[in-house]
Amino acid sequence: MELPSELINNAVNELSKLPGIGKKSALRLVLHLLKQPIQSSDNLGQAIINLRRNIQFCKICFNVADETVCSICNNKNRNQQLICVVENIRDVFAIEKTNQYKGVYHVLGGVISPMDGIGPEQLKIGELISRIKENAVEEIIMALNPTMEGDTTIFYISQKVESLKVKVTTLARGVAFGGDLEYVDELTLARSIVTRTNYEKYLVQ
Amino acid sequence: MELPSELINNAVNELSKLPGIGKKSALRLVLHLLKQPIQSSDNLGQAIINLRRNIQFCKICFNVADETVCSICNNKNRNQQLICVVENIRDVFAIEKTNQYKGVYHVLGGVISPMDGIGPEQLKIGELISRIKENAVEEIIMALNPTMEGDTTIFYISQKVESLKVKVTTLARGVAFGGDLEYVDELTLARSIVTRTNYEKYLVQ
Repeated sequence: MELPSELINNAVNELSKLPGIGKKSALRLVLHLLKQPIQSSDNLGQAIINLRRNIQFCKICFNVADETVCSICNNKNRNQQLICVVENIRDVFAIEKTNQYKGVYHVLGGVISPMDGIGPEQLKIGELISRIKENAVEEIIMALNPTMEGDTTIFYISQKVESLKVKVTTLARGVAFGGDLEYVDELTLARSIVTRTNYEKYLVQ
Repeated sequence: MELPSELINNAVNELSKLPGIGKKSALRLVLHLLKQPIQSSDNLGQAIINLRRNIQFCKICFNVADETVCSICNNKNRNQQLICVVENIRDVFAIEKTNQYKGVYHVLGGVISPMDGIGPEQLKIGELISRIKENAVEEIIMALNPTMEGDTTIFYISQKVESLKVKVTTLARGVAFGGDLEYVDELTLARSIVTRTNYEKYLVQ
């Protein structure tokens, strides 16, 4: 499709490179932008340019940051002795959304996956161990996805920190809120029976 | 949701102002951009800024243009005596995509709709009539949507140009390709019988 304007062609092409946006949706967005005041598209364009140009990775936890240290590591009200170990920044956002967690994070940048050629040296595991040693960290919560690779990574890290005085915990596995027992897979159901919770503790949650 | 980076917050907010993009999709797009080289987001941001800043409306047909006259009106290979009258620039794109039309366009900017307070003077009808007079236009194709307002606009324009030597045609109404006779509305089916086509002419299409 050859549009009669290079400006539109260009914007449509660039927008349709984004995941989940095809040429038709891109054209719809462009026509929307044309109807808005100049300020709207200036703000949008500038926000996208600034984002990629100015973003940094926190030198402590490897989360995205506006400065060399992210706002979570910089926050004095958060427990710096409690580290939640996650695979990527998406997981940080997911946990932050719950508003329940008051510790800090450590972003591994992936999980050990020999099939994809990812070994421990490609991940921020060495940095995690130095951090535990230097800051007298009390507990690391292994919040990795419940997959074979996630479990391998948890096992590897737990072996590495065995000699250090740090408690290693994992997220509770169990039946989700609103879940239907009938449709829960056997492994999860079996695990949720083994790790059943005292009712008083359940009420506290 | 408070993200730990102002840069990300800002980009998510701006992206989620676009139609059909919520906060979650916006965050997905932002995380995608962060994985791409700087050049990608620079190109996207700049394309959006340039689009709205530099776009113009063709002073002849009121289509969008990169210069004061659009590339279609400027194209010597297109028949300047054949004008396709459309409601908005989306319709220009839809007809251009067919690759069948070799005339030029005239974008009205809407249709006559007393309910919405849109009368003939809000549309580019005066400009269309001057154009017909000045350029000895032979035919205008009224390619407006088949609605009450579209039909009213066609009737109004046809009255206005009655004294000029210009042929007024409308798009053929009929059964769509791949359509099922059983599900075609009565009005369209009745019209397609009245304006039935010679089989030889059908084959030419």
